[in-house]
Amino acid sequence: MVDLRAFDVFATDCPSRSVLDHVTSRWGALTLAALRPGPRRFNDIARAIGGISDRMLSQTLKTLEGDGLVVRDQQPGGQRVEYALTPEGERIADATRHLIDALYEVMPTLLAPRSAG
Amino acid sequence: MVDLRAFDVFATDCPSRSVLDHVTSRWGALTLAALRPGPRRFNDIARAIGGISDRMLSQTLKTLEGDGLVVRDQQPGGQRVEYALTPEGERIADATRHLIDALYEVMPTLLAPRSAG
Repeated sequence: MVDLRAFDVFATDCPSRSVLDHVTSRWGALTLAALRPGPRRFNDIARAIGGISDRMLSQTLKTLEGDGLVVRDQQPGGQRVEYALTPEGERIADATRHLIDALYEVMPTLLAPRSAG
Repeated sequence: MVDLRAFDVFATDCPSRSVLDHVTSRWGALTLAALRPGPRRFNDIARAIGGISDRMLSQTLKTLEGDGLVVRDQQPGGQRVEYALTPEGERIADATRHLIDALYEVMPTLLAPRSAG
């Protein structure tokens, strides 16, 4: 049995901390958000995320796969490989999307000239 | 007028992308979450976040302050300096907390041995 109360992202040795690091890595959040609409091929994900290199995407997908948030699906033919969110990945990707939406909400205020104080 | 539809975190040149990078930086998410209960002094934040160095916390607070998510409050006496979330910072910190809670929810599944496939 896992003790739910035991998780604490503020503690360096908590396993939830390393998953948070992956989810909030430079490319982790965008990769999860890019997979949220449904399974996608590597090149489609790469094209969706501006500025990501193949190497960084490959590394990000491997890390998220290791966490159990992403799964690599090879179709029977063997040619077509797709990446998809696991149910846990979907849960996290939803929260990431929520964070991005909150960001869009506050952006106009952040960009407005500060009032003289 | 800011065109809301113009924001796109997937685009490298969108201002929302750099704020997302800060919010999801190695320490950004934890710093926002640490400030969510209320204003705190530097040393209290440093103590709350396991593993953060003073230098990294100082840099993270400066970046979030530059974004307009955190504000540095100096009390009239001049001795006591506190860091607080702006209203926009609160909105983002709430979403970050939501993400951390989602993480706690899925952690038991992520840590469970994978079923043999």
